[in-house]
Amino acid sequence: MTEALVLQSDFGVSDGAVSAMYGVAHSINPEIRIFDLTHDIPPFHIWEASYRLLQTVPYWTEQTVFVSVVDPGVGSRRKSVVARTRTNQYIITPDNGTLTHLWQAGYIAEVRQLDDRRHRLPRMGESYTFHGRDIFAFTGARLSSHVITFEEVGPLLPTEELVLLDRTFASSSDNGVTGIVEILDVRFGNVWTNIPVTLVRQVGLDIGNHVKVRVSYRDRIVYEQTLLFGHSFADVPVGSGVVYINSLDQIALALNQGSFAHAFEVGIGNDWSVSVQHIKGGDRT
Amino acid sequence: MTEALVLQSDFGVSDGAVSAMYGVAHSINPEIRIFDLTHDIPPFHIWEASYRLLQTVPYWTEQTVFVSVVDPGVGSRRKSVVARTRTNQYIITPDNGTLTHLWQAGYIAEVRQLDDRRHRLPRMGESYTFHGRDIFAFTGARLSSHVITFEEVGPLLPTEELVLLDRTFASSSDNGVTGIVEILDVRFGNVWTNIPVTLVRQVGLDIGNHVKVRVSYRDRIVYEQTLLFGHSFADVPVGSGVVYINSLDQIALALNQGSFAHAFEVGIGNDWSVSVQHIKGGDRT
Amino acid sequence: MTEALVLQSDFGVSDGAVSAMYGVAHSINPEIRIFDLTHDIPPFHIWEASYRLLQTVPYWTEQTVFVSVVDPGVGSRRKSVVARTRTNQYIITPDNGTLTHLWQAGYIAEVRQLDDRRHRLPRMGESYTFHGRDIFAFTGARLSSHVITFEEVGPLLPTEELVLLDRTFASSSDNGVTGIVEILDVRFGNVWTNIPVTLVRQVGLDIGNHVKVRVSYRDRIVYEQTLLFGHSFADVPVGSGVVYINSLDQIALALNQGSFAHAFEVGIGNDWSVSVQHIKGGDRT
Repeated sequence: MTEALVLQSDFGVSDGAVSAMYGVAHSINPEIRIFDLTHDIPPFHIWEASYRLLQTVPYWTEQTVFVSVVDPGVGSRRKSVVARTRTNQYIITPDNGTLTHLWQAGYIAEVRQLDDRRHRLPRMGESYTFHGRDIFAFTGARLSSHVITFEEVGPLLPTEELVLLDRTFASSSDNGVTGIVEILDVRFGNVWTNIPVTLVRQVGLDIGNHVKVRVSYRDRIVYEQTLLFGHSFADVPVGSGVVYINSLDQIALALNQGSFAHAFEVGIGNDWSVSVQHIKGGDRT
Repeated sequence: MTEALVLQSDFGVSDGAVSAMYGVAHSINPEIRIFDLTHDIPPFHIWEASYRLLQTVPYWTEQTVFVSVVDPGVGSRRKSVVARTRTNQYIITPDNGTLTHLWQAGYIAEVRQLDDRRHRLPRMGESYTFHGRDIFAFTGARLSSHVITFEEVGPLLPTEELVLLDRTFASSSDNGVTGIVEILDVRFGNVWTNIPVTLVRQVGLDIGNHVKVRVSYRDRIVYEQTLLFGHSFADVPVGSGVVYINSLDQIALALNQGSFAHAFEVGIGNDWSVSVQHIKGGDRT
Repeated sequence: MTEALVLQSDFGVSDGAVSAMYGVAHSINPEIRIFDLTHDIPPFHIWEASYRLLQTVPYWTEQTVFVSVVDPGVGSRRKSVVARTRTNQYIITPDNGTLTHLWQAGYIAEVRQLDDRRHRLPRMGESYTFHGRDIFAFTGARLSSHVITFEEVGPLLPTEELVLLDRTFASSSDNGVTGIVEILDVRFGNVWTNIPVTLVRQVGLDIGNHVKVRVSYRDRIVYEQTLLFGHSFADVPVGSGVVYINSLDQIALALNQGSFAHAFEVGIGNDWSVSVQHIKGGDRT
């Protein structure tokens, strides 16, 4: 039996790096089933790597092994870790914040520090810069093929030692909800927040309402409009703005068949806040 | 036994969307064999999705299941359908014109309407915007793994109800043949028409002839030259234009090692016509 | 038993070309395991295709079959070949220089000329422009699935007849080492030379030294600085230059978290030389 091995990196697929990782994994187990999460994480963008894991891990079965290599500190003393989720999936990654979203969403059960002097490609050369191939793909393939167990990767790491990114949570008030721009749906230009639809419901807003939407960068208001909270883009005319529930059940903003992010030059992170509020004087529904 | 599952979309592979589809499919059948057609269809470009199916479906075996998700109407009342080809392949897609090229080329044997209230991921959340994951990949995996049969997806749809794109056909006259720019060979900038080589032969033109080529956008002539009808690009000097038979056995235009489409700003669709004619006063061969 | 089939091309993955190759291969053997090297080789860039094979072939097992299709001469009289490496891997490619790096690094044991009138898709149409699908993927799938043997592909080709690219080798002197810019690590902008770390050690330079680095285009000096020879990027501050050993155990240049290639507009090939020398008056270490 072999489990799925799912690879993520910021390497792109224009050179041979990812294929060398496939080759190492396939050498360990010719029956291995390798899938890609994405290799288009912007270089060194740990936040986005962390988010993409949250977006996908829940849709893979128990025992799936994920390898995520966005690693600006390769060759330095940063630790390597293997996390086990509550549903017994594994994520192997540098300990640099890549597990932030999964951890804060409650997915991580325990974490071990990878002993990367023991777990590395035997014929590894002199290079210190391609741990994705020499350590992470190698270990991921051995774990997913049951050559080694989770316990064998190294000692337990107290989860309070895990490196986490600074990330602001969504909150609610009488008027509505506030969160941050968590990520852009790059291809379509939609703006995805960290505001769960459950929080929006708690303040009495739901699909069918019109709501007041504000996007700010620090103290500067970038966008402020009354929009329909719809089922999907198709609820408004082409080119119109809409609030909808994205595929992670969180609040998102779109221009139907246009790019909200591009139109208003929206970025991501804690400095980009989004609020969704009741319209004063009663909802127009 | 598991059949190949081949995925196409306009999602790109820079985020987690495609990997979530893989995960759902793999959860249904850990032995599943998933391949990509492409995920780089330009956003909402149904015509191109339709063409890419025609370009690839004939090269896959009987029982292969294709999932194509270019879906500007997601969340609206557009139907979902499953088509069976005459060689018993299946294509699952929104009913929005994606089957146009296969239908008009005579590949489609019958079509069923997908009952998407029954056929959806059990733990599907509140989102109405990711049917690619929640309905199409889910159903594609179940069909290719023989968990469900074609008959079980839903009732037969009369094929005259199938949504088709408006698409002009190639035609011939005494002087030569006329068609449209069907698609661009994006990477190399070649211009692919909908003119079958058989039609060109019927008017007495063949490889080795010189022919008069005209490309027009509506009434405006964009390009007009006498070109060699060659075996391939390599029959003319680097930088020269050439008429050749593309890999779908249709007429195409290229600049050897250059981009014909870029050089003359050629677009695609019914407004872009291409004619290939005899040279008056006899062929120079 | 089926061996891995690894595909490389300059086709991109935005259209249906690569998927048609998958389909042909899968039709020959439904159990086949297909992987991508990359399909993003710049159009017609044989040098880069040749390099990417050197970067990846050593990480795949015995019996793996590689298909590489960068083929500006498709349809002309260029030969098709199948090479066997000393570790019994196979590479199928047009004979146009694609095997240069593997050959010069001593990997190739013998080469056969592919008899492409015998080894082609039976229902191949009239097109002369898609040998990737009709000949190379077809033959690669049959070889990796043991439908045909290496001996059956065609007669031995004397290796002195193999087409090779003109490629300058690295050399050393009392002062240091000189080589060329072999390739760019596109995603990160690092500059990879053809200078093996073993050659650098022979002239008395090693990790921890400061060294004088010069990059030239023909006679023009493009960059000249004293840099640390470090373990990895992380040994210098963000934005600083560093010399390091890349994942092929050769000398490379980087700006930590920046793009060396972009900053100094560095290109690749024999005209781009790199020298790494002792600092006069003794090393600062």
